Amino acid sequence: MAEQEGITVKKSDDFSEWYTQVVQKAELADIRYNVKGFVVFRPWSVKTMNNMFKVLEDELESKGHMPTLFPALIPESNFKKESEHVEGFLPEVFWVTKTGSDVEKLEEPLALRPTSETAMYKMYSMWVRSWRDLPLKLYQRCQVWRYEGKATRPFIRGREFYWIEAHDAFGTEEEAVKQVKEDMETTENTIHKKFGIPFIFFQRPEHDKFAGAVHTYAADTVMPDGRVLQLPSTHLLGQNFSKPFDIKFIDKDKSEKYAWQTCYGPAVSRIFAAVIGLHGDDKGLVLPPEIAGLQIVIVPILKEGDKTVLKKVSGLYKKLKEKFSVFVDDRKEYTPGWKYNYWELKGIPLRIEVGPKDVKNKQMILVRRDTGEKIVAKETDIKKIASVMGDIQGNLMKKADEYFKKNMGEIKNFDDLKKILEEKGGLIKIEWCGNKECADEMKEKTNGGVIRGTVFGKEEKPKSTCINCNSKSKSVVYIAKQY
Amino acid sequence: MAEQEGITVKKSDDFSEWYTQVVQKAELADIRYNVKGFVVFRPWSVKTMNNMFKVLEDELESKGHMPTLFPALIPESNFKKESEHVEGFLPEVFWVTKTGSDVEKLEEPLALRPTSETAMYKMYSMWVRSWRDLPLKLYQRCQVWRYEGKATRPFIRGREFYWIEAHDAFGTEEEAVKQVKEDMETTENTIHKKFGIPFIFFQRPEHDKFAGAVHTYAADTVMPDGRVLQLPSTHLLGQNFSKPFDIKFIDKDKSEKYAWQTCYGPAVSRIFAAVIGLHGDDKGLVLPPEIAGLQIVIVPILKEGDKTVLKKVSGLYKKLKEKFSVFVDDRKEYTPGWKYNYWELKGIPLRIEVGPKDVKNKQMILVRRDTGEKIVAKETDIKKIASVMGDIQGNLMKKADEYFKKNMGEIKNFDDLKKILEEKGGLIKIEWCGNKECADEMKEKTNGGVIRGTVFGKEEKPKSTCINCNSKSKSVVYIAKQY
Repeated sequence: MAEQEGITVKKSDDFSEWYTQVVQKAELADIRYNVKGFVVFRPWSVKTMNNMFKVLEDELESKGHMPTLFPALIPESNFKKESEHVEGFLPEVFWVTKTGSDVEKLEEPLALRPTSETAMYKMYSMWVRSWRDLPLKLYQRCQVWRYEGKATRPFIRGREFYWIEAHDAFGTEEEAVKQVKEDMETTENTIHKKFGIPFIFFQRPEHDKFAGAVHTYAADTVMPDGRVLQLPSTHLLGQNFSKPFDIKFIDKDKSEKYAWQTCYGPAVSRIFAAVIGLHGDDKGLVLPPEIAGLQIVIVPILKEGDKTVLKKVSGLYKKLKEKFSVFVDDRKEYTPGWKYNYWELKGIPLRIEVGPKDVKNKQMILVRRDTGEKIVAKETDIKKIASVMGDIQGNLMKKADEYFKKNMGEIKNFDDLKKILEEKGGLIKIEWCGNKECADEMKEKTNGGVIRGTVFGKEEKPKSTCINCNSKSKSVVYIAKQY
Repeated sequence: MAEQEGITVKKSDDFSEWYTQVVQKAELADIRYNVKGFVVFRPWSVKTMNNMFKVLEDELESKGHMPTLFPALIPESNFKKESEHVEGFLPEVFWVTKTGSDVEKLEEPLALRPTSETAMYKMYSMWVRSWRDLPLKLYQRCQVWRYEGKATRPFIRGREFYWIEAHDAFGTEEEAVKQVKEDMETTENTIHKKFGIPFIFFQRPEHDKFAGAVHTYAADTVMPDGRVLQLPSTHLLGQNFSKPFDIKFIDKDKSEKYAWQTCYGPAVSRIFAAVIGLHGDDKGLVLPPEIAGLQIVIVPILKEGDKTVLKKVSGLYKKLKEKFSVFVDDRKEYTPGWKYNYWELKGIPLRIEVGPKDVKNKQMILVRRDTGEKIVAKETDIKKIASVMGDIQGNLMKKADEYFKKNMGEIKNFDDLKKILEEKGGLIKIEWCGNKECADEMKEKTNGGVIRGTVFGKEEKPKSTCINCNSKSKSVVYIAKQY
C-alpha cells in the first residue's frame, strides 16, 4: 500500500486535473504502459466495469440476443468489401503483417478489428438462408483497437477500448427500424437507470454517420466541464452491408431477399468515464450501488484488548454478504481515519463503522458516500441498509439528471452561442441550414462546437434561419463542444 | 433454423469424426472463418464458457486475486527482456507493424500477446515498492494469439484462444511455492468439482517447461481416444522475471529484494474441449448442470384447442427461473420429437415434458440428458428437480473419474508400451533415464508418446532401468500421446 494522498483540486475549479487525479489516485488506470494511447485498467475500475458489462449483457439477452466470440483479426479482403466503411475506418487500423521471428510475411494482412461488421457479416451470409433463420441477434463483449489521431485520455479515448457490439439481421426494414428503438430502450434501462447517466439520443447529421450506415443515432451526455461525451450509438444499416456481404434469404413467399441490419455499440470503458465524471466529487470517485465493484466496506474501530467489535463485525459481514458485495477492512497497520479516506477516494457507496460504543448500544453507524450523512441504525436492521443503498442510487441519478437538464439551452444569435459554448458549454439548441460546410465553419468559429443532430423522436420544425449563414434553416439541431 | 441432422457416428467408433460433428451440429464453433486457425465461437459454446469463466473468476477472487485488463499489444523491447521466454514464444508471435492506409510504419513492432508476462511485469516493477505492496495477485480474462505450427481444431488448439492468466508476486520463495499449491486447489475446486473433468498435475521435465519458468506443473486429462489434453498449468517463475523486469521491494528489514513470482493459466476454450469429449455421448453434447449455458428446457406437448398446458408451463417457468436458467420451447413449427432431439444434441441437462395428461394428473415428466431416465414428479416438486440436477452433476463427474482411472496404466517393457499407446492410449507409468534425447527417441519410436513428467506430490522412487535405453532410471514418469 503506497502513501495515500487525496484529491488536491476541486472538481468545479479544474475538472481536467480533477479527472486525472481520480484516475490515478483511486487506482483506476495506469497510463505508464509503454505503448502510446494504451493504458492498463486496474482492479478498481475493472470490478465496476465487469458489473456494467453484466447489466448490459443481461438486458441484451432478455431481448433475445445471444453471445458470440469472433476473431479479433479481420482479413484485408473482408475489411474492404463495403466502400464507405473502409474509407471511414482504414486510417485507424492496426495491421498484422508478419509472424514469428520476423521472416514470415502473412499472405494477406490482417486488421485488428476496429469494429466487427466485416468479420461477422461474412459468417452471417452462411448462417442466414431462410426466413426461419431470422431475426439473427448476436452480440460480443470484446475490445477493439483504433489508431486514434486525437489526444487520448484513460476511459474517454484510447487506442484500445472495451465494449459490447450487437449485430442484428431481420427480414424486413420495419423490424430493423424497431430494433433501433429497442436499442434506445436498452440504453435507458441500463445506462440511465442502473449507471445513473442521463443522455439524449440524436440522429447524427449525414456527414457524421457511422461509416456505412443509413442513419446513426447516438446518445450524448454532458460532462462537468460542459463538453459532451458520446455514449452508445445504434445504427440502421439497411441493406448497405447485406448486399456486399451477400446476406440473403428465401422468404415465406419463396422469393430471395437481402437482410435488413442494425448494430449497437455501448463502449463500457468510455461510459465508465461518465460515471467518474458525473457522480464523482471533491473526495474522489462515487459509485452507484447498482454497479459498484464493492458496495459496502465495514471499518471496525478496534481498541486494544477488546474482542467484541470484531465478533460483531464478523456476524454483520455474514449477513450482508448474501445481498451485497462487502469487505471488512480490519487491517491493523492503518487507522480508521486513514481507511475512511481510502474508501471514499475509491467511491464505495456505503461505509459501516462499528466501535465498542456501538456494540454496547446494539447499533451501527452507516455513512453515505454520496452525501456524507451519518445514520445510526439498529445492529439487526439489514433492511435499513438496503433502503439506504436505494436512496444513494436514486440520489445520484437525480443529481445527474438535474445537471443534464441545466446544461440544455437554446440560442438564437451566433455571438451568444459562441459565448455560451466558451463559458459554460452544454447542449445548445439552434437552427441550421443543413450544409456540412456551414457546420465546419461553425466548428472553426466556436473553437470546437460540433452539431450533434436532431433529437430522436421529437418533431422540431425549423422556423427561422441558420444561426451561422442566415440562409433558410432546414432543421433544429443541438451543438456542443465534444470529447 | 436449419434442417436438423443428428450425430451419425458413434463416439467409441470414431472419436475424431464424432467430435467434428458435435462441434458443427450443436453449433459450438464455425471453422469457416477465413483466417487459417481462427474459428468463430457460437452462442451454445459461449454461454457455457461464460459460466466456466465465472466459476474460475469467483474462485480466484475468493483466494485474493483481483481482475485487471492489460493491453493486448506488447512492445518488442518488453517482449525480448527475458531470454528463455522470448526464445520459446518468438516463433509463435503475430506482429503488428503498420497502421492506417499502409504507409505509416510503427516505430517499434508490437506483439499480439501470446501470454502476458512481458506486458504485466514491466508495470509490476512500478507497483511493487515495499513489502506492503505484496503479495500482488492479479488476473485477467482475455484471449491470446499464437501462430501455431501444429494442426488446429476448434477448442483443442487454435491460433486464438480464451483464457484466464493469473500473475502473482511475493516477498519470499516459500509463499510462491505455496501459491503453486493454491493454484492446484483452484483447479480441483473448479475444473474437477464443477466442470467434472478429472486430471493429474505433473511436474513437467526440464526440457518441456514453460519458457522462463523454474518449474512447470501442468494438469493432464485423458480424452476418449486415449490421447491426453493439457488443462491448466501453474509455473514457479522464481526470480527469473523479477530480475530482468526489475521487480524489487524494500523488505521489513530495509533491504532491497527481488520478488518471487508464479503464474497460472486455465485456457477455458481448451477445457471446454474436454467437457465436449468426456461428457458427450452418441446423441451429442452433455453439459454438467453447474456450467450449462442453459440448464432446463421445458417442452409443452400442445393439443389443438387446449390452453391448460401452456398455462401450467408458464407457472412452472416462473418458479424455476429463480433457481435455474430455463427456456420454454413453445415453437409451433416443430414437433415435440424434433425438439427433444434438438436439445439433446445441444446437451441441456434436463428436459421437462408437460402434456394434457400431465396437467390432469398434476405431474411433470423429467428426462435426464445423461442417462435418458424418465422421472414422473409432482407438478409442485421443485426440490425434486434440484436433486435430479445434483444427481446429473454427480453422475457425470463419477463416470469421467472412472474413465480416467481406467486409462492409467503401468508398463515395464518397451514393446508393450508401444502397443498400449498404439491401441488404447492413456497415461502410462514408466521409468526414464531423464535425458531429453532418450525422450525424443521414445516419441519417435512410439509414434508420438510424450513424457508428461512426475506426479506432483507423490514420491515415486525409480527402482529399475530406463524403459527405452536401459541405462539407470532417474525418475518414475508418465508417458502419453497428446493433443
